Amino acid sequence: MAKVVKGFSKLSKEAKIEWIAEQYFNKDENSIELLKSYWHADAPTQKLHDEFIENTLSNFYTPYGVAPNFLIDGKLLAIPMAIEESSVVAAAAKSASFWLERGGFKTKVISTIKIGHVHFMYEGDVPKLREFVKSINSKFYEDTASFTANMEARGGGIRSVELVDKTDKLDHYFQLEARFETCDSMGANFINTCLEQFSKTLTSAISSNNTFTEKEKQIQIVMCILSNYTPECIVRSEVSCNISELTDGSDISPEEFAQKFKRAVTIAELEPYRATTHNKGIMNGIDAVVIATGNDFRAVEAACHTYASRNGSYQSLTHCSITDGIFKFWIDVPMALGTVGGLTTLHPMVKFSLDLLGRPSAYELMSIIASSGLAQNFAALRALVTTGIQKGHMKMHLLNILNQLEATEAEKAIIVDYFKHNTVSHSVAVRKFCEVRGIKNPQEISKNH
Amino acid sequence: MAKVVKGFSKLSKEAKIEWIAEQYFNKDENSIELLKSYWHADAPTQKLHDEFIENTLSNFYTPYGVAPNFLIDGKLLAIPMAIEESSVVAAAAKSASFWLERGGFKTKVISTIKIGHVHFMYEGDVPKLREFVKSINSKFYEDTASFTANMEARGGGIRSVELVDKTDKLDHYFQLEARFETCDSMGANFINTCLEQFSKTLTSAISSNNTFTEKEKQIQIVMCILSNYTPECIVRSEVSCNISELTDGSDISPEEFAQKFKRAVTIAELEPYRATTHNKGIMNGIDAVVIATGNDFRAVEAACHTYASRNGSYQSLTHCSITDGIFKFWIDVPMALGTVGGLTTLHPMVKFSLDLLGRPSAYELMSIIASSGLAQNFAALRALVTTGIQKGHMKMHLLNILNQLEATEAEKAIIVDYFKHNTVSHSVAVRKFCEVRGIKNPQEISKNH
Repeated sequence: MAKVVKGFSKLSKEAKIEWIAEQYFNKDENSIELLKSYWHADAPTQKLHDEFIENTLSNFYTPYGVAPNFLIDGKLLAIPMAIEESSVVAAAAKSASFWLERGGFKTKVISTIKIGHVHFMYEGDVPKLREFVKSINSKFYEDTASFTANMEARGGGIRSVELVDKTDKLDHYFQLEARFETCDSMGANFINTCLEQFSKTLTSAISSNNTFTEKEKQIQIVMCILSNYTPECIVRSEVSCNISELTDGSDISPEEFAQKFKRAVTIAELEPYRATTHNKGIMNGIDAVVIATGNDFRAVEAACHTYASRNGSYQSLTHCSITDGIFKFWIDVPMALGTVGGLTTLHPMVKFSLDLLGRPSAYELMSIIASSGLAQNFAALRALVTTGIQKGHMKMHLLNILNQLEATEAEKAIIVDYFKHNTVSHSVAVRKFCEVRGIKNPQEISKNH
Repeated sequence: MAKVVKGFSKLSKEAKIEWIAEQYFNKDENSIELLKSYWHADAPTQKLHDEFIENTLSNFYTPYGVAPNFLIDGKLLAIPMAIEESSVVAAAAKSASFWLERGGFKTKVISTIKIGHVHFMYEGDVPKLREFVKSINSKFYEDTASFTANMEARGGGIRSVELVDKTDKLDHYFQLEARFETCDSMGANFINTCLEQFSKTLTSAISSNNTFTEKEKQIQIVMCILSNYTPECIVRSEVSCNISELTDGSDISPEEFAQKFKRAVTIAELEPYRATTHNKGIMNGIDAVVIATGNDFRAVEAACHTYASRNGSYQSLTHCSITDGIFKFWIDVPMALGTVGGLTTLHPMVKFSLDLLGRPSAYELMSIIASSGLAQNFAALRALVTTGIQKGHMKMHLLNILNQLEATEAEKAIIVDYFKHNTVSHSVAVRKFCEVRGIKNPQEISKNH
């Protein structure tokens, strides 16, 4: 059994790798070589990547691809995507080309405010507290002036600080709720630093004010933290065309396609089991660009899904309407992004992504990413309501299965050809592979793969 | 302005890169070199990565680290994490060491069933349809036998196929709801392939049965798709100890810590703004391992967040109790994972991760990942209710800021020392850097970074 280790974080990277190999790989040199083979050839570049987090041993590769032909608000973009799932980039590119000929994506940043809270407990007179917080409002701004100066110079800063009474949910529970504009930065550190100062300002102002009783002065700060739920930082992306333009070479009529498509969206609006998968597909398109541009996909995921549940039942993030012969399909999503700060200027591939997109502002990036999500959903629904999703998906997945089986190029050609007219499944692909290679017992192959 | 491109996907990788450089980088050779510098040195390995998705140009590096000392169900593990955010691995490792001395993580896989649907429209007699679906039940199994044989050999397969009447939500809307056990595979392709066959089986059985009227025979398949919402595929991970053991060197008593901690969890159970961020932190710990083990983090994110909203209001995924002097902290999360299929045997770093974890079953991996999420949340809440989150976080982030400014090691030492006694913020760090280096106008530095 592996040993407990103390002071692991203080070991050099090489010593960490050796310890791991010793404890978990029976000192296998191949495991060490594997980790090293994934290092960047340029040592200073690798050191930069190592320092992003702690206990770094190597790099995890995610394929980095591009989806060209995205016409968004009149600009023609090739969108960078970092994603491991096959068919996501292909689907995005296919939707982009489809809408390119129908006016492209039109977007609108609806609002850009981020929210944070000082959560605290107060036992005492509520109107007095409310008046007091109002009376010291300017102090919240003054005490954070050294942190906010740069943000204000860029047009951002603190927008409001207000008391929220939450005692209906929990006895004595209040919040200082603050709104922020963080311009091109995601703003998490800025917001949290301000909030921690607000808590000090509040505590010290109350404790030195003699209109509060001793008990009231004992306010307890529970925590100071931004919210990843950003329903006031919202972007819309939309595509639309005449129904008659909804032709794509398949054998259903544009009218029938429009109706089927809309019905699939309606079901995702009504049924949480479907909405989860529907939105998951949207997030394929969103996260791939979020990651490629150095943003935090957990934050975006959390915001989008909470937003999807805001009406009490988990729902679709996209919507569809058919009015007066016009088909319209759109997404409204919360999205807190940065194009400065964090990894955006540190990670060379992130810099590349932002250059590729023409150095967008955070607001432009919101528009691009929402469009990527909408494109992804359009492609998924189009496949689902016509040929089914498996045909295209498994065709692409087939190559992965064959690589896994270490099929030769000649074997691949025969098998791919076979599946042009047959349903792909992992087990049938394995069986076909065995047949082509002349392996008698497919079970053995399955176990090893 | 960039040009529309046709047939981009059919170009070689080199030609794709050249097109991108020509259209978006003014043919800058450096942009081409950058992409190539991120390729794996071994060409066949790089080709493998290229084929995971479409239009691949290069690899996106995410730091790959390990958090040692995780005692989970009596096994001592070093957990692999692929994550770009600083402090996540450090927090996991800190929690792991804390709980190592207090019995470690205890887990339980509560259920492992995955769900998929054939969504369809039917206008006609409902009891007749219900009886009919029951009567052809065995046919769903028979018609999918060639896809399910291998899964059944491993102990999995189709568990049930039932009609669900959804006409209360939408006129004429029904589902075939099927339950699956997919053992060590995530099962998405398996489930979707079965569902598409179910739809064919249903359609053909109804259309050839003369108890149905012509109108009833016109059932319309809307779509066939698994659900990423998996409330029947759930794992629990738990830590517990005597309250008196909750000492960690900070200056608050174990009792006070326990109360403060529990109150922070209660707030996340009650307040969606807080729950979103609370769960986002959990997902930092979950996704890092999901990615390192080749699983689909969008699927896990969607399932967890929908699960968090299941009671009509978005809530915390973790819970805390203090009973008879025992502090208990646990997480219940849905998690559909695979340890075979997909990228698990294709991506060399994924293979490494699974080897490092001792080749876990999908169920063991559920336990490991839930524990990683719980550990992350414990660390975040511990920081939040004691010193605040910014102190530790900004200390780590400071190094990133200084690297971004290209500070020398000597400059770093002076500045890190300064911030031992001062609040770190991006703007103050920049100002301090300018002071140390003797730059007169900090605004210039800020603009460039």
